[in-house]
Amino acid sequence: MRGSGPVVIGVDVGGSKVLAGEVDEHGRIVDEVKLTTPGRRVEVSIVEDTLLEAVAQVADGRIIDAVGVAAAGFVDVDRQRVLFAPHLPWRGEHLIDRLSARFGAPVVLDNDANCAAVAEGEYGAAGGASSVVMLTLGTGIGGALLVNGELWRGVNGMAGEFGHMQMVTDSLRCECGGVGCWEQYCSGKALVRDARARVAQETSSMMWALCDGIPDELTGPMVTEAAHAGDRVALASFGAIGQWLGIGLANIVAAMDPERLVVGGGVSDAGEALLRPARRALQRSLVAGSERTVDGARVRVVPDITPATLGPEAGLVGAAVLARQLL
Amino acid sequence: MRGSGPVVIGVDVGGSKVLAGEVDEHGRIVDEVKLTTPGRRVEVSIVEDTLLEAVAQVADGRIIDAVGVAAAGFVDVDRQRVLFAPHLPWRGEHLIDRLSARFGAPVVLDNDANCAAVAEGEYGAAGGASSVVMLTLGTGIGGALLVNGELWRGVNGMAGEFGHMQMVTDSLRCECGGVGCWEQYCSGKALVRDARARVAQETSSMMWALCDGIPDELTGPMVTEAAHAGDRVALASFGAIGQWLGIGLANIVAAMDPERLVVGGGVSDAGEALLRPARRALQRSLVAGSERTVDGARVRVVPDITPATLGPEAGLVGAAVLARQLL
Repeated sequence: MRGSGPVVIGVDVGGSKVLAGEVDEHGRIVDEVKLTTPGRRVEVSIVEDTLLEAVAQVADGRIIDAVGVAAAGFVDVDRQRVLFAPHLPWRGEHLIDRLSARFGAPVVLDNDANCAAVAEGEYGAAGGASSVVMLTLGTGIGGALLVNGELWRGVNGMAGEFGHMQMVTDSLRCECGGVGCWEQYCSGKALVRDARARVAQETSSMMWALCDGIPDELTGPMVTEAAHAGDRVALASFGAIGQWLGIGLANIVAAMDPERLVVGGGVSDAGEALLRPARRALQRSLVAGSERTVDGARVRVVPDITPATLGPEAGLVGAAVLARQLL
Repeated sequence: MRGSGPVVIGVDVGGSKVLAGEVDEHGRIVDEVKLTTPGRRVEVSIVEDTLLEAVAQVADGRIIDAVGVAAAGFVDVDRQRVLFAPHLPWRGEHLIDRLSARFGAPVVLDNDANCAAVAEGEYGAAGGASSVVMLTLGTGIGGALLVNGELWRGVNGMAGEFGHMQMVTDSLRCECGGVGCWEQYCSGKALVRDARARVAQETSSMMWALCDGIPDELTGPMVTEAAHAGDRVALASFGAIGQWLGIGLANIVAAMDPERLVVGGGVSDAGEALLRPARRALQRSLVAGSERTVDGARVRVVPDITPATLGPEAGLVGAAVLARQLL
């Protein structure tokens, strides 16, 4: 229900869709619009027109007080521009000025993973923790850091790019130009690759029916559906991805020793099928993960891997939280 | 020269030696004592007696005002105990109370890599930077993080254990129980392993003469000496280690995006022989390390890899800096 307060709108601009919503002061989405966008080959103007259209539909003729934009790409440290985005056409354009003029309202911009972490920190699974590592497992890995309860953006605004930590040598080439990046082994893309290979061998899997016997047609949500139904082949795929999740998190925990780990994104819809193998691998891979002192106390408390709670709207809500700070 | 101010002593307790020194308010070492210690099989009392003796020699009968202890091990988040140390006999003993009673002065305890980072932040290569990743390349990899100019210790006091990030799968087993840890590829241990293998094949190397033709007798300082003299085989070893240094730093920079990278420890005595290949690998491995925007600007400023400036006394000096905060 629309309130009488300021109109604050969050927008999440992804590689294939724009999700816009009015968000109230309690983080609730009052109204939401979803539009599809073409991919990276299209012009900047098309993505921006879609963005403007989605916001206009949410505003519905009312005066807009503030807009937050979550973008799937590298945002500069001053948060004025999307510097580089694998699935969006922006390449350093000054977005903020242009959008502010169009909306007649202040605009804030941040990376979508950062926005999701802000939302989870304010209203979700990251609340109350002093230091949080948050992963969004979608097609790739989005990541963000909260330090002392605040986003840690880094000197270039690029902190949290965990997905491009090299985990394997002489191995899978990544879209980023690197080799053996974590997101090649632990992401929606990795899950689908793994499950397609398995289903081609194991036609008794429920996934075989879901994809009509065409492994190339298998999607992430199908693997999740089969895993929820107890399909062993799908569970094995989540086991493989979950193990990589735990190993990568062990590296991040070794480096930063955060209080909480939060995992969201579509891949995490599988819940325990993903998290159980991840927890086991984290415990095993983490330095001093199971060491005890002479009095039997644990040397370190291994942080739990906590599911995100805000779902696919986390980015939109977080962008609105940042926008509300402009009021 | 001894001053008339308070007597503040820093002690660095390593696996084979205790280094103690009086440090003045400008971070200068006024007086220094070095004693050797037996390794991990000895009793706690022997290490502590060596520590007490070294401090007593520095104090030379004067009243001690504060003592800082840098220990090569995991220190708990309250900094009361060494929880676990691969090369020291402490296993969770309450060190602070015992040492304070013996010295008749307040005592502060921290991990040696943390102490080195404090010293470099106060008087050395890490000064003035808002966020710093510091590595101490000795036998293994010591690591520490400065965030907003302060040590980031993590929720368990274990942040900065970069050396146990898994870099390679199905590979070299690490003393920590893990597999493929970074310090198996980028440390003094790794350098000596690599150089011994090379010198066994290439007897024309200067290292062959330095180790009297016995590769097992080759030490890290010999490899450094040969590299300084331009020996190609030794330079190739530093090239290999340096490359791993750059790859691992790329992972840390992807995660944290810090302003500065500082590398100290004995292995870094080789200077550019180590740092040049490391810089190249960092640039190449880092996500968006060479991307440019439409206007030709760099997407990210890749931080330089800066040599530490305080040498092997950094831990001692940092411990004294922390001790001085108790006055």
